[in-house]
Amino acid sequence: MTAFDAVDVIRTKRDGGRLSDEQIDWVVDAYTRGAVAEEQMSALLMAILLRGMTAGEVARWTRAMIESGERTDLSGVERPTVDKHSTGGVGDKITLPLAPLVAACGAVVPQLSGRGLGHSGGTLDKLESIPGWRARLSHAEYLAQLRNVGAVVCAAGDTLAPADRKLYALRDVTGTVESIPLIASSIMSKKIAEGASALVLDVKVGSGAFMKNAADARALAETMVSLGGAHGVRTVALLTAMDTPLGLTAGNAVEVAEAVEVLAGGGPPDVVELTLALAREMLAAAGLDADPAAALADGRAMDVWRRMIRAQGGDPDAPLPVAREIHPVRAESSGRRIR
Amino acid sequence: MTAFDAVDVIRTKRDGGRLSDEQIDWVVDAYTRGAVAEEQMSALLMAILLRGMTAGEVARWTRAMIESGERTDLSGVERPTVDKHSTGGVGDKITLPLAPLVAACGAVVPQLSGRGLGHSGGTLDKLESIPGWRARLSHAEYLAQLRNVGAVVCAAGDTLAPADRKLYALRDVTGTVESIPLIASSIMSKKIAEGASALVLDVKVGSGAFMKNAADARALAETMVSLGGAHGVRTVALLTAMDTPLGLTAGNAVEVAEAVEVLAGGGPPDVVELTLALAREMLAAAGLDADPAAALADGRAMDVWRRMIRAQGGDPDAPLPVAREIHPVRAESSGRRIR
Repeated sequence: MTAFDAVDVIRTKRDGGRLSDEQIDWVVDAYTRGAVAEEQMSALLMAILLRGMTAGEVARWTRAMIESGERTDLSGVERPTVDKHSTGGVGDKITLPLAPLVAACGAVVPQLSGRGLGHSGGTLDKLESIPGWRARLSHAEYLAQLRNVGAVVCAAGDTLAPADRKLYALRDVTGTVESIPLIASSIMSKKIAEGASALVLDVKVGSGAFMKNAADARALAETMVSLGGAHGVRTVALLTAMDTPLGLTAGNAVEVAEAVEVLAGGGPPDVVELTLALAREMLAAAGLDADPAAALADGRAMDVWRRMIRAQGGDPDAPLPVAREIHPVRAESSGRRIR
Repeated sequence: MTAFDAVDVIRTKRDGGRLSDEQIDWVVDAYTRGAVAEEQMSALLMAILLRGMTAGEVARWTRAMIESGERTDLSGVERPTVDKHSTGGVGDKITLPLAPLVAACGAVVPQLSGRGLGHSGGTLDKLESIPGWRARLSHAEYLAQLRNVGAVVCAAGDTLAPADRKLYALRDVTGTVESIPLIASSIMSKKIAEGASALVLDVKVGSGAFMKNAADARALAETMVSLGGAHGVRTVALLTAMDTPLGLTAGNAVEVAEAVEVLAGGGPPDVVELTLALAREMLAAAGLDADPAAALADGRAMDVWRRMIRAQGGDPDAPLPVAREIHPVRAESSGRRIR
């Protein structure tokens, strides 16, 4: 790999130029192994945020992040693999009923998930409210669960896009989160490295989302769909509203309880509607013709949920923890949604 | 002092906003004492470089840098104090004959000087080619030399704008040098903290300077003159050409030798001309009516030079070091200046 001077790379982007493929490969690799300093990368990230990147630059940057680690080979899994990613909102517990529902319909869902980010909760944090459930699996456990249960929601290993892990932590403390090229490459490098054949993106837009307006959300969605396609992952995106919280709960155990209501055939209508919409997209992307509403109604999705929780040490029948203190806060309501 | 979140300060500038006085005071102080991380400051510096700062922001930033250390009180020096700063070029040895010349005309020149920067040589590096000469003086030695000799060129102490020392090193490795607000505040925080009552700026413009065009050089000059005035330092700036090296030498000992020729009444015409022009400006800024050409011609400037070098341990009569290897490189010349 050609070596560059970090200051020259920073200056190129600072002055509005295009980074070459070789510069991108070098700077991502050198930063990951510590040869480019944190303060140099943060200056480059700010220049990227303010100057932007071309589609070609974002594609190469994403590729370099994937190649900083290992891309999981899921070709040994015999059913079609499909995953979903949400850009995050308030009360978004959709992954919890969705993963077992899609698995119940014949696909395999290999979801490497994250922790809370800013104001949005993390799927792993929510699942950890289930007594005994653990987020970390060995690679062998992970593959066995995909084969036996068809759905895994667990923590990413250290070899999944390590460049992103470092970059994400740096962006968080340097005011360089809100950049479409950086958000898109961060999400897609992890999802592509994860190894699923198809991906459905739930891009949130509105006051409770990272993207406040539809134009930004659409630009982010288009960038990510294009990145997925370039790496052979069939990718589709839905733009969904995040102006009010999803469902009636926001928290950890309370969101798990709401997800279980949905799997039992009840739950808030907006959560059920979005779960089914994403399930249909995932099944279509996986090339499967199945009716997720039926799998929700007849209990097949609940069966997969219980096996999925048990496979990771959790007890699906154990009572969920309750808050030590409860303070009711009542809102006046005209019966309309608050905007 | 009000505390802020570093990320909020970075975001304000990133999004094109104006930093408040309180944000500037806090971020410069917190960075100097290590509470704002290098990677956070570098993101802020890149945002400043790309978004700019208002005149009010530059003034407050400069004030915060001065207040990171101590401003020297030269009120005990009985003659008028005046200093000169050059933004740096190739072969610029003007400080060497200029400081003793202006002192010979009745002013006191308290120059805290620097090392080489980029492609431009450092005055201290040049003077260190004189056997025995030392750049570091105690504060008492410094004040005594100002009183007894009238001119000092020495290294700045650790209490002179320590924020600038940290910021300068950071800018050098993060591609954030070329910002007029950052250059102006760096130079002026040191020169104001130095304590001279008047200041003449030699702002270089041309292919051998940091400012390549006259518009940028003028903007930098105007910013610095305004900062000096705001802190009670009478400041004037000359824009001078740096398209060809100054004089016939560029190096350390060779530039000292050329400076001594000028002090002896000879030397290259361009060096003599610029030395006299800057001396006249310095004397006018100091409120003195004196003829520097006479002080150069009659040997008074040379006398001060010899005392100045001796006061810092140097031997003005010792032979200067010569290069171990000499390779002549001849240029074809039509007798005109090469441009």
